[in-house]
Amino acid sequence: MATSRRVLLKRRPVGEPRVEDFEIEEAPLPEPGADQVLLRTIYLSLDPYMRGRMNEGPSYTGTANPALGDVMVGGTVSEVVHSNNERFSAGDIVAGSEGWRSHSIATGAALRKLDSKAAPISTALGVLGMPGLTAYVGLLDIGQPKPGETVVVSAAAGAVGSAVGQMAKIKGCRAVGVAGGRAKCEHVVKELGFDECVDYKSQDVYTALKLACPKGIDVYFDNVGGPVLDAVMRLINRDARIPICGLISEYNATEPPRGPNIRPLLFNRATMRGFIVSDHADRSGEFLREASGWVQAGRLRYREDIVEGLDNAPRAFIGLLRGENFGKRLIRVGADPTRR
Amino acid sequence: MATSRRVLLKRRPVGEPRVEDFEIEEAPLPEPGADQVLLRTIYLSLDPYMRGRMNEGPSYTGTANPALGDVMVGGTVSEVVHSNNERFSAGDIVAGSEGWRSHSIATGAALRKLDSKAAPISTALGVLGMPGLTAYVGLLDIGQPKPGETVVVSAAAGAVGSAVGQMAKIKGCRAVGVAGGRAKCEHVVKELGFDECVDYKSQDVYTALKLACPKGIDVYFDNVGGPVLDAVMRLINRDARIPICGLISEYNATEPPRGPNIRPLLFNRATMRGFIVSDHADRSGEFLREASGWVQAGRLRYREDIVEGLDNAPRAFIGLLRGENFGKRLIRVGADPTRR
Repeated sequence: MATSRRVLLKRRPVGEPRVEDFEIEEAPLPEPGADQVLLRTIYLSLDPYMRGRMNEGPSYTGTANPALGDVMVGGTVSEVVHSNNERFSAGDIVAGSEGWRSHSIATGAALRKLDSKAAPISTALGVLGMPGLTAYVGLLDIGQPKPGETVVVSAAAGAVGSAVGQMAKIKGCRAVGVAGGRAKCEHVVKELGFDECVDYKSQDVYTALKLACPKGIDVYFDNVGGPVLDAVMRLINRDARIPICGLISEYNATEPPRGPNIRPLLFNRATMRGFIVSDHADRSGEFLREASGWVQAGRLRYREDIVEGLDNAPRAFIGLLRGENFGKRLIRVGADPTRR
Repeated sequence: MATSRRVLLKRRPVGEPRVEDFEIEEAPLPEPGADQVLLRTIYLSLDPYMRGRMNEGPSYTGTANPALGDVMVGGTVSEVVHSNNERFSAGDIVAGSEGWRSHSIATGAALRKLDSKAAPISTALGVLGMPGLTAYVGLLDIGQPKPGETVVVSAAAGAVGSAVGQMAKIKGCRAVGVAGGRAKCEHVVKELGFDECVDYKSQDVYTALKLACPKGIDVYFDNVGGPVLDAVMRLINRDARIPICGLISEYNATEPPRGPNIRPLLFNRATMRGFIVSDHADRSGEFLREASGWVQAGRLRYREDIVEGLDNAPRAFIGLLRGENFGKRLIRVGADPTRR
């Protein structure tokens, strides 16, 4: 009998998650009912927000977090194996949120068909998916960069950060990244076209940022919080905008850490604003049109960090929170029929 | 020979200012030249922002801070003693920024004539002056309160805070103050009409605010920073707005203190924005029209905390930073001819 695999939340982590917090389970292949489709997962997206979904209580998106024993949530790209729904045919490639599992049953309402000729299907989880939309909304709508301004972004080699810096360049800004390690910084500058990248692992962030941003910082797209935000706050310009997209540095904290001194916010009439991409689904259409064009024109590049096999998802996710990924981290759950 | 008195900045304070940081000087009465007026100060305004003006370097408004030996800056209400300027006559009452002195010479360009029949002239330094405009711009333009929302303001018995809460009530909001001591809290609720007031000196601010704001906090008008901001951050609602008007709790700090944990900002899609009233002079006209009407209708009340004599200004200012004032703190430098 055909079986499927899935990764369950076994225990709510205290601090950094451990592989023992997850459980891998084998189960019979589910059967699609009327109007349903059976999906085979090709790619599972791993994203920092998932750490919050492992906690008790509702998530910040308002949806319930998984109960203990539930399948971990996550964005997916899948192939339709069998369809009882007239909108889908076997062989279709679809993006959805099927979670950490090899197979799933869906009604199709939340699935989006992908055209594998337009772009590699994995990009639906990265540069042309949620992380790309996050960069687009956070930088353009919240950050509102103007030509000639300086935009700084942390986690600059990651899925969101790499798109932020390139979009800043497209908008005529100076783009400065902060990333961990020399290889990532080189990639950010040489491959992605940022003007500068600060290596927080080997450099004093404040000193290096000050050098990299001789005209100060107008927009700081924050993915990490912590010491990088502290340093940036000391360098912001008048009317600076600080979209708060994520606080990776403290997702594993057991006590909420103190934030930056906010005097610079007052003196510089600056704005710090949190945002959650799921509130901005209305921007998806325009984002996809614009970003697809940038990708095709080579102006919006991306790097993927693909880990093989669903069983490795827990370990790969823990590493993501440590910053060990280099580009958009994906799990290849099953064969990608569109890649030769 | 007639003489004048003035208060000079003698020494830049480290931490809390001391009376020895100021010097009181007697000088000959200045003589107005062509187009100039000689002013006699009636009221000098004392405001927390002055602490920053005692430091080295340019102020956050972009103007130079006083050099050592310069007269301390400050808003004033004065009487024209002698005029060589056709726009003014002896006996006119004018609002300006003549600083900590008994007499001054002005060209009149920066003076605003007051109508003592329309409102007590001292209000030009309080509810109908810079503090009132600060409340108006910060609450209405930056905070954007909607009817039914909960607005919290710190330093609620002070010049700005008392206006913020009453304007919040005028806009149909629940108004909750934070102030130091039972007398101030009683005043804020019974005289000014706030719904509740938390006494940070005798209550646990988080617990008391949670009780006082059963629907959470939509707008927090921050005058103080520090532990009150920390507590508020744990209670903010989705899409909350936090205008940062002042950080009195840390003006005397020698090391910039850490700020609040900013995770609630992210999860609640909240906005924290610093503002400086001097950027919003374009709102003065509308503010004066609206606020004068509210004052006349008894909807915008105020309390003054008047200290007699210019020589007491240093001590009164140091006390203001400690929160010992109860209402708008003014120095009566000379007799007020409009008060019987």
